[in-house]
Amino acid sequence: MTGIPESHPRYLSLVTRERLVEMMHRGIVSEAGLIAHGRGEAFDYLIGERTNDFAAEAERAGVAALLLAEKPVVSVNGNAAALAGKELIDLAGLMGARMEVNLFHRTEERVDNIVRYLESLGGREILGPEPNAKIPGLEHARGLCHSDGIYSADVVLVPLEDGDRAKALKKMGKTVITIDLNPLSRTAKTADITIVDNITRAVPNMAKLAEKMCRSSADELRDILKRYDNGTVLRSALACIGRNARISGEWRM
Amino acid sequence: MTGIPESHPRYLSLVTRERLVEMMHRGIVSEAGLIAHGRGEAFDYLIGERTNDFAAEAERAGVAALLLAEKPVVSVNGNAAALAGKELIDLAGLMGARMEVNLFHRTEERVDNIVRYLESLGGREILGPEPNAKIPGLEHARGLCHSDGIYSADVVLVPLEDGDRAKALKKMGKTVITIDLNPLSRTAKTADITIVDNITRAVPNMAKLAEKMCRSSADELRDILKRYDNGTVLRSALACIGRNARISGEWRM
Repeated sequence: MTGIPESHPRYLSLVTRERLVEMMHRGIVSEAGLIAHGRGEAFDYLIGERTNDFAAEAERAGVAALLLAEKPVVSVNGNAAALAGKELIDLAGLMGARMEVNLFHRTEERVDNIVRYLESLGGREILGPEPNAKIPGLEHARGLCHSDGIYSADVVLVPLEDGDRAKALKKMGKTVITIDLNPLSRTAKTADITIVDNITRAVPNMAKLAEKMCRSSADELRDILKRYDNGTVLRSALACIGRNARISGEWRM
Repeated sequence: MTGIPESHPRYLSLVTRERLVEMMHRGIVSEAGLIAHGRGEAFDYLIGERTNDFAAEAERAGVAALLLAEKPVVSVNGNAAALAGKELIDLAGLMGARMEVNLFHRTEERVDNIVRYLESLGGREILGPEPNAKIPGLEHARGLCHSDGIYSADVVLVPLEDGDRAKALKKMGKTVITIDLNPLSRTAKTADITIVDNITRAVPNMAKLAEKMCRSSADELRDILKRYDNGTVLRSALACIGRNARISGEWRM
């Protein structure tokens, strides 16, 4: 589009930026979403822009929890739709999960835009417009949701989520799975399963895992969850950042 | 404006974000500037959102270099103008430095908007429109500059600068001072003096230093520069990030 050569060392990162800017002009990503993306870029850089072991482990646990769920729901905001819309639809399909558009900077227009965008990618029966329930403990617009979706879900995948909302969902007794590149964020610390990975890598990884793991028994899946420790995963992610910064300091100058 | 209470733990960060979004709608900050700001936020978080010793040392060296310059120039882009416009004008005044608006995503309209904005803050004789020179080795639009400004400067302060441009300025034989929160960026590694600090803290710090240091002799200033080692400063910044990530991993969970 703007002719970034594929050979450019930062090709993927630059193309992704352009995509988000375009999605902002299409009313799908918010302005604050662009800033949030930049934060993610920095943390992705510091974890080496790859799916590390701690992320692969959390992705496996996340898939196990979603497959075991009575009522799994995948929450989608503007950045998630722009970065991994098709992939989230595929993942939700494999899980039999409902999708719900849920925005931090909510406007009905943007909810509609995102629903239409996901439908254009093949998504069906996506919740979001005309919310009829409320997550307790959140300011009005932030708490709006759907009784058939997030409100009644037992397991929710909430990628790129706000900290207050992650907490409120936990308080409702839900199992909260998030994808968040910042292992220090409140969402990362609040969730039951925190995938410290770029959403563009994490969701396809999870879809691949789901294709295999859907043949596992419930006991095998429960076993994965029993052995999973989110604190260890977060500490590993932070240690990785610390190591990368140190190694760069020692060798790359 | 949107009623963020001053007591909010992230008040300053949230207000700054709103300011940048507003500046984007006023045609001063580019969309890519919002993403870049997010990256800066992440690194600022990791260095503790404060002026560390390594930054204070670089700020002192930066002021010494600017005061010793025959022809110091302060380069300003959209984010720099939005985040520290008034402070950069004050600093340039103390240094007798010319200011030049120089954009990575250059449009003549945005150059004009930024010049007018800086003039509304008290800036005078700001260069930018009608460029009449070119930085060698850069693609046309990226290389445009002014013969009375960046082109003929011996010392340039280029906050939040692109890596290629920082390199091209070095190649022209200039002393390059940058303000960049990412100690791993190409700009950070290329500059002679890299201030790893938020521009909103760095520029007022430098203005305060300049008020004192303008009474120092040239020999005293040269002595500061002789003792300054940018490699050590960058290694200290990375060590700080590593330490903060590690400490968070050990204690904050």
